[in-house]
Amino acid sequence: MDERALDELCINTLRTLAMDAVQHANSGHPGLPMGAAPMAYVLWQRHLRHDPTDPSWIDRDRFVLSAGHGSMLLYALLHLSGYDLSLADLRAFRQWDSKTPGHPEAFMTPGVEATTGPLGQGAANAVGMAMAERALANLINRPGHPLIDHFTYALVSDGDLMEGVAAEAGSLAGHLGLGKLIYLYDANDVTLDGPASLAFSEDVGKRYEAYGWHVQKVDGGDTDLSAIDAAITEAKNRADAPSLIIVHTTIGFGAPTLAGTSKSHGSPLGEAEVAGAKRAYGWDPDRTFEIPVAAREHMAAAVAKGASAREAWLARAEAARANDPEAVGTLELAISGKLPAGWDGDLPRWQVGDSVATRSAAGKAQNAICARIPWLIGGDADLGGSTKTVITGGGTFDGRTGAGRNIHFGVREHAMGAIANGFDYHGGIRPFVATFFCFSDYMRPSVRLAALNRQPIIYVWTHDSVGLGEDGPTHQPVEHLMSLRAMPNLWVVRPGDGNEAAAAWRLAMARTDGPTALILSRQDLPILEGTGEGANDGVARGAYVVAGNGRADAILIATGSELCVAMAARERLGEAGISARVVSMPCWEAFAAQDADYRESVLPSSVRARVAIEAGVTFGWQRWVGERGRVIGIDHFGASAPAPVIFEKLGFTAENLASQVRALLPAAALLGDTQLPL
Amino acid sequence: MDERALDELCINTLRTLAMDAVQHANSGHPGLPMGAAPMAYVLWQRHLRHDPTDPSWIDRDRFVLSAGHGSMLLYALLHLSGYDLSLADLRAFRQWDSKTPGHPEAFMTPGVEATTGPLGQGAANAVGMAMAERALANLINRPGHPLIDHFTYALVSDGDLMEGVAAEAGSLAGHLGLGKLIYLYDANDVTLDGPASLAFSEDVGKRYEAYGWHVQKVDGGDTDLSAIDAAITEAKNRADAPSLIIVHTTIGFGAPTLAGTSKSHGSPLGEAEVAGAKRAYGWDPDRTFEIPVAAREHMAAAVAKGASAREAWLARAEAARANDPEAVGTLELAISGKLPAGWDGDLPRWQVGDSVATRSAAGKAQNAICARIPWLIGGDADLGGSTKTVITGGGTFDGRTGAGRNIHFGVREHAMGAIANGFDYHGGIRPFVATFFCFSDYMRPSVRLAALNRQPIIYVWTHDSVGLGEDGPTHQPVEHLMSLRAMPNLWVVRPGDGNEAAAAWRLAMARTDGPTALILSRQDLPILEGTGEGANDGVARGAYVVAGNGRADAILIATGSELCVAMAARERLGEAGISARVVSMPCWEAFAAQDADYRESVLPSSVRARVAIEAGVTFGWQRWVGERGRVIGIDHFGASAPAPVIFEKLGFTAENLASQVRALLPAAALLGDTQLPL
Repeated sequence: MDERALDELCINTLRTLAMDAVQHANSGHPGLPMGAAPMAYVLWQRHLRHDPTDPSWIDRDRFVLSAGHGSMLLYALLHLSGYDLSLADLRAFRQWDSKTPGHPEAFMTPGVEATTGPLGQGAANAVGMAMAERALANLINRPGHPLIDHFTYALVSDGDLMEGVAAEAGSLAGHLGLGKLIYLYDANDVTLDGPASLAFSEDVGKRYEAYGWHVQKVDGGDTDLSAIDAAITEAKNRADAPSLIIVHTTIGFGAPTLAGTSKSHGSPLGEAEVAGAKRAYGWDPDRTFEIPVAAREHMAAAVAKGASAREAWLARAEAARANDPEAVGTLELAISGKLPAGWDGDLPRWQVGDSVATRSAAGKAQNAICARIPWLIGGDADLGGSTKTVITGGGTFDGRTGAGRNIHFGVREHAMGAIANGFDYHGGIRPFVATFFCFSDYMRPSVRLAALNRQPIIYVWTHDSVGLGEDGPTHQPVEHLMSLRAMPNLWVVRPGDGNEAAAAWRLAMARTDGPTALILSRQDLPILEGTGEGANDGVARGAYVVAGNGRADAILIATGSELCVAMAARERLGEAGISARVVSMPCWEAFAAQDADYRESVLPSSVRARVAIEAGVTFGWQRWVGERGRVIGIDHFGASAPAPVIFEKLGFTAENLASQVRALLPAAALLGDTQLPL
Repeated sequence: MDERALDELCINTLRTLAMDAVQHANSGHPGLPMGAAPMAYVLWQRHLRHDPTDPSWIDRDRFVLSAGHGSMLLYALLHLSGYDLSLADLRAFRQWDSKTPGHPEAFMTPGVEATTGPLGQGAANAVGMAMAERALANLINRPGHPLIDHFTYALVSDGDLMEGVAAEAGSLAGHLGLGKLIYLYDANDVTLDGPASLAFSEDVGKRYEAYGWHVQKVDGGDTDLSAIDAAITEAKNRADAPSLIIVHTTIGFGAPTLAGTSKSHGSPLGEAEVAGAKRAYGWDPDRTFEIPVAAREHMAAAVAKGASAREAWLARAEAARANDPEAVGTLELAISGKLPAGWDGDLPRWQVGDSVATRSAAGKAQNAICARIPWLIGGDADLGGSTKTVITGGGTFDGRTGAGRNIHFGVREHAMGAIANGFDYHGGIRPFVATFFCFSDYMRPSVRLAALNRQPIIYVWTHDSVGLGEDGPTHQPVEHLMSLRAMPNLWVVRPGDGNEAAAAWRLAMARTDGPTALILSRQDLPILEGTGEGANDGVARGAYVVAGNGRADAILIATGSELCVAMAARERLGEAGISARVVSMPCWEAFAAQDADYRESVLPSSVRARVAIEAGVTFGWQRWVGERGRVIGIDHFGASAPAPVIFEKLGFTAENLASQVRALLPAAALLGDTQLPL
């Protein structure tokens, strides 16, 4: 078979596998795989450097299917390239417990680099991977020993490029000059509701040129493999700018009546269209999941090619080790996700009498850790001066060299979140990202994906309540704590003073199986009695007794800036002969994960007089205060005024807290379970 | 005083008022007002058609300060133009209960058109206002009687234009050819963390050209008033495309050492810089809040000009009324926010035995309402076929003529949310917008602002749980219900069958003081006994008894697609001699707003055996089931599989619900309050 025929056979194998799997599942998106198979094939067969037998090889090229609805294209590529994904797996497409879910999940399927489907995310993840490649190269590579040197490719769709997150990431990638980033844009001009022209008539190429990208066009994307090949080669040669290759294709290519229409986008084609398409490909319409031997053999060559590429790299790694063992050791440790010995040896501690905003304390803790972990890098959305997350002496991240540990994301919170995920997908770099807590909403879709992927991203969200004061309700989070506590796998940590802030950074760093959000005050807070000794263990356990370890008439539960209010209220209550316990509860999720004994020791079930205080909505606090407890919170939006005025007006005072406790005490005692006739 | 000197005096009055107010509050952002005062002055003095004595005049030009941190510029303009905002109000900048909060709040201050501060929102709001202008013009204007015909201006900053939401809105505005939309871009090249070039080096003008905008540049934005004036005139003359005017300015213009630096951006300048700037303006450095008489008189001319413009319009309106009284009546009713008599007369009802997805039922209800309310228009983020929100026969919205009631937003959820707010800000058009529930995260910052503003936007969010099936966890909401219930003022409504879906639309339409989210199933659900009669009142009250109105051993609380599971479980329990009540609770917020008697009648406090079932996180349900209740929910992410399989695997079955109730019964009876020795 001549090469051209063999190429076509392989491409049609990808197409028919996708059609058949969608048809078999009676669910899915056949159109994109049928249209984008040629560009994906050319990329995978002729350019992508990867080893299917070792999907975690650190210097492999990355491929992100940002248009995640075309998952069957990716699964077909993985199967045919020799990844651990069987034909039975393809037949189980979109079924319970399969390795082939409806949209690609990075933690689920070998060779899937990113969890995609929510549009725009993959495009931005790829920017993060390309940045991570540069950062890790800067950290590890030595003259003559370039261990990290690979491309990052993303296949993006019309829908991806309409999303704001992709726009933000594209602008940043151009600014950074990420020359090893290449987008293949499947421009099929069709989206779910019809022709893309219903809503999308901009000049995409010109837009990316405006961002500083190198832009090429391929008109015959359905058939012109050499043009695709040449464009990829040219893109690889452009080291100074990221590349966009606009490939014009026909969605549902080959389907007799549905090709080029939105009807081929998101639903099975139906038996007749599938048969017609197969006939158009010169395929037997009666056979399903057919893989011609020649196609299988041709694409399986990826295994041998990948193995030899990786072996060559391993040899280079040994040479690099001989040259600079420490650098290679750093690489290995960084990739492992483990922390170096003594990483938390310099964490700061504050004394009673000190007063410090938790953002400032956290910034000091972060810097102490950054000094010990060179692969911990971070950035902010134009608020580094306010979030206190600048790595002292770390320099500004340079996208061409990878030098500099402070990333200026610009006012692009959403891309920042997606790029952080990309860092983690890449591996070898541990990211933290920062902005005002209120603007966590802007990046929420990416936070959700980090939680779904169980990626240990660290979010530093400061200005955490009405306590930020004058900027007013547009900037004051009130519902954010609860709305994020509701998200599975995300841990939300709101430390109550400087020592808890340092402990919060320790908790976040030690976490390996999900993202952690640090919620920090703008305003200064006093260092409290008991946190110097108790915070490290207490914060790690999510909640602990800060004061009043013995018998208690009442329990005051507080987080963050309200912890000192609880301490002051305890004092007042004590003067009135009421013994109150103060429980600091910086992290609900960690506390819920403790054993029942520990939880009982902190919140004895016999003490029903409980008041929680937190400068946010009361929604959800019933869980800890119970039916007889009370909550001092803010069930409305904030206000613009100096912070002390706001706290006073809204009842965040020791007086109010103490009086709430007093109001509760007789009734709680009367109704308490301890009086039940058991 | 010659005109040039008078102009300068006015501009410096704006600058000094801003500096002084920030200094007085010791908080705020002086830099933008000082740099952008010239362009704002030229716009307001020479172009903006508005009547300070009637800020709600429907045909006024709109001005949005997207860079909301420059609020003092806007407050100074409002004060000097004659709006109801006194010098005392300016002195109360950023203080408790003032009309001059840190960032502009549309509901707070006469003449403030949009709540801004979170960057990018105002830029997108303005797109929505310009779309609303066209839509209302199409609805109301008659040949020779153009009652709606005004411009929408936005002052945008570097930070605004880095945000994805602005990018999405910009692309859509270009696509729609919104010729009456004009951005003045304060290109001062400085953001909070330093020079914008740290993160922002794209060619903004070229990008907007790629979107299809008309782009102009003004180099001398600090002083060249005639160039600014000419550019605005030219932009007004370009009817076929929105206009971007890039005005290069100096942030903090005039401040001796801080001008042109990020230090003038977000903090008071300090006394010395303020004095220096005043000297540079030829101002007395010892006087604060000084308004020269000449400046006051010159700018107060806006009142007379505005009054005469509005009077002319009122005369036109009377002529229009004579020509077509119905059209003017429609305009008046549409502006009032009231609903026409009989608006809900055609709402559909389904019978027991029918089965319908709540998205489909809601679509029918929506269409029945749309037929009665021509100013109800909506759109979707490329999912109209799936969300079932297309207005039958409504046509596609055309940005040039304003015809067509179905807006194709493209895959731009965030802009869609911000544009919906813009529609409401404009007035006269009631918007609804739709996408998959999971992607509500993408638009959350705009939803929050709608809630803060108490804008009656309707969100139609379908595919509301793991019940969407094969698309998998990237598309399956689990935490979204709770994360949105936590947001003040937003009402979240999850109807349990077709009749509840119609009632949910009725509730949403009737709401005037905040946004409402309709959370709808992809999958078919059976029509339940009791909803035909009970749903209208029951949904409006947030929760109601669907079955088991008498004495109950247990209460089953359900929402949405789990309501039918509860009904089936009730039957099973009945067979075992256990009488269970089924409470449908589609809207927590509405139920919480009922009086205690009603709440007690639905959830009698004597019945402690309560199980809630909802296909989402259990977080928060403690509020309704109490300490002794249970919740069947999903405290992890979903899975890709056919929906019935997922529900079975995750325990959303009548069997499991019934068995949870049985497990609970003895203990709940034992511990129940009814047995307390009172």
